[in-house]
Amino acid sequence: MSNASLLILPGDGIGPEVMAEVRKIIDWFGAKRDLTFDVSEDLVGGAAYDKHGTPLHDDTMAKAQEVDAVLLGAVGGPKYDNLDFSVKPERGLLRLRKEMDLFANLRPAQCFDALADFSSLKKDVVAGLDIMIVRELTSGIYFGEPRGIFEEGNERVGINTQRYTESEIDRVARSAFELARRRSNKVCSMEKANVMESGILWREVVQKVHDEDYPDVELSHMYADAGAMQLCRWPKQFDVIVTDNLFGDLLSDAAAMLTGSLGMLPSASLGAPMANGRPKALYEPVHGSAPDIAGQGKANPIACILSFAMALRYSFDQGDEAARLENAIEKVLADGARTADLMGPEGGTPMSTSEMGDAIVAAL
Amino acid sequence: MSNASLLILPGDGIGPEVMAEVRKIIDWFGAKRDLTFDVSEDLVGGAAYDKHGTPLHDDTMAKAQEVDAVLLGAVGGPKYDNLDFSVKPERGLLRLRKEMDLFANLRPAQCFDALADFSSLKKDVVAGLDIMIVRELTSGIYFGEPRGIFEEGNERVGINTQRYTESEIDRVARSAFELARRRSNKVCSMEKANVMESGILWREVVQKVHDEDYPDVELSHMYADAGAMQLCRWPKQFDVIVTDNLFGDLLSDAAAMLTGSLGMLPSASLGAPMANGRPKALYEPVHGSAPDIAGQGKANPIACILSFAMALRYSFDQGDEAARLENAIEKVLADGARTADLMGPEGGTPMSTSEMGDAIVAAL
Ligand SMILES: CC(C)[C@H](C(=O)O)[C@@H](O)C(=O)O
Ligand SMILES: CC(C)[C@H](C(=O)O)[C@@H](O)C(=O)O
Repeated sequence: MSNASLLILPGDGIGPEVMAEVRKIIDWFGAKRDLTFDVSEDLVGGAAYDKHGTPLHDDTMAKAQEVDAVLLGAVGGPKYDNLDFSVKPERGLLRLRKEMDLFANLRPAQCFDALADFSSLKKDVVAGLDIMIVRELTSGIYFGEPRGIFEEGNERVGINTQRYTESEIDRVARSAFELARRRSNKVCSMEKANVMESGILWREVVQKVHDEDYPDVELSHMYADAGAMQLCRWPKQFDVIVTDNLFGDLLSDAAAMLTGSLGMLPSASLGAPMANGRPKALYEPVHGSAPDIAGQGKANPIACILSFAMALRYSFDQGDEAARLENAIEKVLADGARTADLMGPEGGTPMSTSEMGDAIVAAL
Repeated sequence: MSNASLLILPGDGIGPEVMAEVRKIIDWFGAKRDLTFDVSEDLVGGAAYDKHGTPLHDDTMAKAQEVDAVLLGAVGGPKYDNLDFSVKPERGLLRLRKEMDLFANLRPAQCFDALADFSSLKKDVVAGLDIMIVRELTSGIYFGEPRGIFEEGNERVGINTQRYTESEIDRVARSAFELARRRSNKVCSMEKANVMESGILWREVVQKVHDEDYPDVELSHMYADAGAMQLCRWPKQFDVIVTDNLFGDLLSDAAAMLTGSLGMLPSASLGAPMANGRPKALYEPVHGSAPDIAGQGKANPIACILSFAMALRYSFDQGDEAARLENAIEKVLADGARTADLMGPEGGTPMSTSEMGDAIVAAL
C-alpha cells in the first residue's frame, strides 16, 4: 500500500476521545500488518474556531485535498450555538464535503446482533437488518443559491434553494447502483416528485441511469414521506436507498436510530477518483459530538473505529483487513464488552472509551 | 349550531368507501343529536381529472371557500402517475390548502390501546402515546418560487425554493402554542438552523412568539434530523411538535406509522377565522388512497370518521359530541371489531368497511 496518508480531524465533544482509540487501531495495523499510514492531525469545528476564528482553516482545507483519506470525529456543541451562521462548527464540515466534492455519502444502517435489544423496535423487525443509505452530499438545499435572510416589505424572509443538475443526480445514482451490485442488487430511490420539480428530475435521471447502464439492478421509487414510514414499519424491505442531501439527512438518522446501534454506525463520504486512483474520501461516525458526555470516558469509540474500517475498504482496497477489524469488534461485543451506551439489562463488562479501544486491539 | 355546511370530497382509491361511512355518522348526528349539516359532495384528485381534465375544478374550489368545513378522503393512484405535474391528483389537494390558506395542519399521532401490538415499536415505547404535530401547510418548499426544470448549459436543472416569511412562521407558531396550552403545555420546534437560513429565521420567530406571548409554555428547539431520531427512540418525550411543510410531511408520516394506528389517524388543516368566526378548515385522514385495496370493502373508515370528529371539535365547537364519537370508536375496538388492517394474532370480529361504520353507529 503506497503512500497512504491520513488526515485526522477529531473535532469537538467526544470527537477527540473516540479518535484517540482509532489511533491505537492505526498503530496496530502499522505494527502487525505492515499497513503504515502517514498520519497528520488538525482542527475542525468549534475547536478550529476557538483557535483560528473559523471552523476550518484554509491550511487544513488544503491538507484535506492532498491526503488519501480524512477521518473526522464530530463537530458542534452548545458553546457554539450562538455563533454567526458563517462560522458555526457545522460550516467546517460542510466546506470539507463541498470543496472535496464528496458527493456520495454511504451510511450503513446495520443492527448488531448483540445490540438488537437496544432498538425501540421489536427484535424481529431489526434483527439482522443491513441496509445502505446513499445520500447525495454536495448539492441540494444545503448549498443552493440564492440563500439567506432578506428584507421584504416590512418583514424578513428566510430563503434556501433546492437545486439538482442532471449530472449531480447521475453520478450519485451510479454510486448507488454500483454498491447494490455488490450487495442484494436492489435500489430504492426516494424524493417528493409529487410535490417538487427537483424530485421529478431526480426520479427521471435515476431511472435513465438504471435503464441504460444498470438494468440488472432492481429499482423502485418511493415518495420520501412514504419512505420514512416504511423505514419505521419494515426496514428489511430495503437494500440500498438513494436520496438527496436533505432527505438523506433525516432518513439516515432515523434508520440509524432504528437499529439501536447508533454508537456503532460509521459513514463514508466519497468523491471522484484522484490521480492515484483512490477516491477523495472522508470517514466519520454517524453520531454527533455528544457534548453531554464529552470528556468523561463514556463515549463509544466503535462507530469511529468502524469508520476507519470503511477507509481501509473504500480508500485503500484492503477489504480483508477491514473485515479483520470488523470481526474483532464483533468478537469483543460477543464477549460482553460494553461502553455505557451499550449497557442493557442483560449486563456485560462495563468499559470506558479507552478500555473498549484496548479490548479491540487485544482481539485483533 | 347555525348553517353548518360541509363539502365532501371523497377523491380516489379508498376515499369514496371510507367517506360513505362518514355519511352514516353525519346522518346519525342529524337524526339523534339535532346537529344537521348542509352537505354537498364533489370531485377532487384523479376523479376530478377523469371528469374535468383538472384535479380540482374552479367551481369546486369556489364551493370549498364558502362552506364551513371540507371533508376529504384521499387522492392519487398509479393510474395518474404519468400525468403532467400540473394536473396530478395531488395538485388538487395542494390548491385547496393554498387557496383556502390552511396554514396549520394538525396531525395527532396517537396510539390506540387496542392496537399497540401493531406498532413495529416495542409496546412500552408506544402504549399511551399521544402527540400532536403542527405542520405549516401553505408555504415553504411546497409553494416557493422559482420552481421548475430549466435548461442550463447543456443539461437540465431541477429547482425548488424554500421560503418562509416572519408572519408565516409567527401564525403557525401561535397555533402550536395555543394547542399546547390545552394539552401538556410543551412545544418542540424542529428545523435545520445549522444548515438552512430559513431554519434560522424559523427558530428565531418561534422563540420570539414564545417569549412575548407564551412564556408559560415550555419551548425547545431540535434539528429535524435529531427530531426524526428522537421520534423513533422515545416519542413520548414530545407533546406538541411544530415544524415546516416539508419536515412536517416526513416527520408526521413517521410518527403516524410508529403508533401502529395508521388507519386510525385523522388530521385537521386550519386557516384564519371566517366572517362567522369559524376557521377555514379541511379535514382528512393521514392515510393515502391505498389503490391496492380500493373497492374491496377492506378499508378502515375510522381515520376518516375521526377526521369528522375533529371537524365537530375545531369547526363547530362541539367538543362533547366529538368525544361522544371518539368514545363510540374506542368501545367498538374494545369489543373486538376489526377491519382487515387491524386483524392481529389475538383475533377479533372481522369487519368490512361498511360493517365497521354500522358498528360505530350502533355504539353511538
Ligand atoms: C452537522 C450537520 C451539518 C450534518 C448535516 O446536516 O449534514 C449532520 O447532521 C450529518 O448528517 O452529517
Ligand atoms: C399527497 C401529498 C401532496 C401530501 C403532501 O406531501 O403534503 C401528503 O403526503 C400529505 O402529507 O398530506
